Amino acid sequence: MSSFTVLVEVQLRQGVADPQGATIERALPALGFDTVAGVSVGKAFRFTIDADDAAAAEQQVEDLCKRFLTNPVIEDSIVTVQAA
Amino acid sequence: MSSFTVLVEVQLRQGVADPQGATIERALPALGFDTVAGVSVGKAFRFTIDADDAAAAEQQVEDLCKRFLTNPVIEDSIVTVQAA
Repeated sequence: MSSFTVLVEVQLRQGVADPQGATIERALPALGFDTVAGVSVGKAFRFTIDADDAAAAEQQVEDLCKRFLTNPVIEDSIVTVQAA
Repeated sequence: MSSFTVLVEVQLRQGVADPQGATIERALPALGFDTVAGVSVGKAFRFTIDADDAAAAEQQVEDLCKRFLTNPVIEDSIVTVQAA
């Protein structure tokens, strides 16, 4: 068993309203940042997982995502697994 | 000017209580995931920014982070800038 560091980024799917992102985007030009566009706000889960290899770790994390970390109806996840 | 895709991951600093992460970590073994540890939950901001080059984009994003996206007293950010 080896240990892997995992980042799961969860973002709302395209087309799902993202009021937090829209508010930030609307506010930024008035604050001096007029080159920023397409803001979306999601969640970032960080954790470590023990598994036999990177593929097994990734599979477990995908399962975890589908079952608990995301709502697959409205959210998408991007998983990054690195050897710790 | 070129366009860059940015991911800003904001996590609570070490030592700052993270009840969301702690709750997930406590729940997972009962749900069949007993190899997961050190869970922390943060925010993930995605956006695009226009800048002359990657270094300028990174500088603008760091400034944005410090001023609006994080509370530097309790939060840390990890910035990833990629050419779009």
